[in-house]
Amino acid sequence: MVQNKIVLIGAGNVATHLGKALQDAGYHIVQVYSRTETSASALGNLLGVTYTTSLDAVCADADMYIVALKDSVLQLLLPAIVKGRENALFVHTAGSLPMDVWKCYACHYGVLYPMQTFSKHRKVDFVNVPFFVEANGTVELELLKRMASSLSPKVYEINSEQRKYLHMAAVFACNFTNHMYALCDHLLSEHDIPFEVMLPLIDETARKVHDLKPVEAQTGPAVRYDENVINYHLSMLQDKPDMCDLYERISKSIHKTNDKL
Amino acid sequence: MVQNKIVLIGAGNVATHLGKALQDAGYHIVQVYSRTETSASALGNLLGVTYTTSLDAVCADADMYIVALKDSVLQLLLPAIVKGRENALFVHTAGSLPMDVWKCYACHYGVLYPMQTFSKHRKVDFVNVPFFVEANGTVELELLKRMASSLSPKVYEINSEQRKYLHMAAVFACNFTNHMYALCDHLLSEHDIPFEVMLPLIDETARKVHDLKPVEAQTGPAVRYDENVINYHLSMLQDKPDMCDLYERISKSIHKTNDKL
Repeated sequence: MVQNKIVLIGAGNVATHLGKALQDAGYHIVQVYSRTETSASALGNLLGVTYTTSLDAVCADADMYIVALKDSVLQLLLPAIVKGRENALFVHTAGSLPMDVWKCYACHYGVLYPMQTFSKHRKVDFVNVPFFVEANGTVELELLKRMASSLSPKVYEINSEQRKYLHMAAVFACNFTNHMYALCDHLLSEHDIPFEVMLPLIDETARKVHDLKPVEAQTGPAVRYDENVINYHLSMLQDKPDMCDLYERISKSIHKTNDKL
Repeated sequence: MVQNKIVLIGAGNVATHLGKALQDAGYHIVQVYSRTETSASALGNLLGVTYTTSLDAVCADADMYIVALKDSVLQLLLPAIVKGRENALFVHTAGSLPMDVWKCYACHYGVLYPMQTFSKHRKVDFVNVPFFVEANGTVELELLKRMASSLSPKVYEINSEQRKYLHMAAVFACNFTNHMYALCDHLLSEHDIPFEVMLPLIDETARKVHDLKPVEAQTGPAVRYDENVINYHLSMLQDKPDMCDLYERISKSIHKTNDKL
């Protein structure tokens, strides 16, 4: 199975960053599909390839279809994506979907999950992106490993069961963490303090867990359950019931976690 | 006011890291006080100075007393710390306590708040520690600014009202963030996935907010409120009611925050 022609199904952040990186690594992307003209044309033009908003117009002779769609859309479109292209290799890029979503439709399939936070206007260096791969056969697996290895030194084989927990863990470490930054930013801006003063602390908090287990790295009022400080902070948040509630619950969770140590 | 002799009141993480850094920068620490023999001797020996566990035995002729105690303890000991030493400069290192806790006791006082996460066994590079200073007079303020500047290029003058919000914001950006890492680690270890696979994502999440506002940097299922993924994750957390509850509340908070954009 020589991978000559690749079609990208989807034109969101993952498809865009991954597609560009694959093309830069010498892979031959031939077409882009997206439901919306704007996204399809943006990525098609970026890669200098044809694009379409109709699945019927997706070329039938590609060797590989990389599907990077929102999970619910993927499951909906999956039969139509495979139909008439049954001999190709199909992979999705989702952390949360099992590989076997392909099982009833395709013969060659797998998962190529790049675990990173992709934003439209931010360049991603794939050297810093771990890839988690899975496939329904040895040949397919080797091919995906080779592809991932051409972009990143960090390639892991992982099964669907592990990947779904990995993905949920990533929601905590990335999305929820970023929301803590956002709540912090909100508090600072209300008091005319620039967010940048917080960056050294944010960086050190991330650096620490390279060397210490997160529970061992914990500091602050919650870990020692300093009620003076905690109650004072809760009183400062009285006009922000959602933040007040999160502050209290996360503090209790920290104390409970570290109490077990 | 020439600052010759400095006494450290407290021997926890802040006192230890700050005391060492000040000594390395040429400041003359003469004594350490801590309530417990273990802590007092550990820091005293580290700095090669005398130590005591009795406030009465704290030398009365120092020029400056740097107080790094838990907030509630500080407020309790404050009168005894100042008594008989009224002409010295008194500073505390707490984010949450106003400068005026000194007002009824001391003549020269201020705050030297190093905003960083200090852990016992981890070296801190003070170049990465922003200092927030405040004092009750121009001379005192200049002295604190000079002291902070000898350790870090990032020195800010800030009043007590701003500092209390800064400190609470730091709890979100550091302590709560670290707890998200801890919950992530817990999930990974249950499924035999090493925490280190998460480090590139953690690093990129921190790096992103150097360039993007946190709300703009947000990705993942909560920002688009992908109910498929969110409900699936909630079902995976059914045997962990606290984590399940946090997952749902933080996701709703993310969606609410980003919906306003």
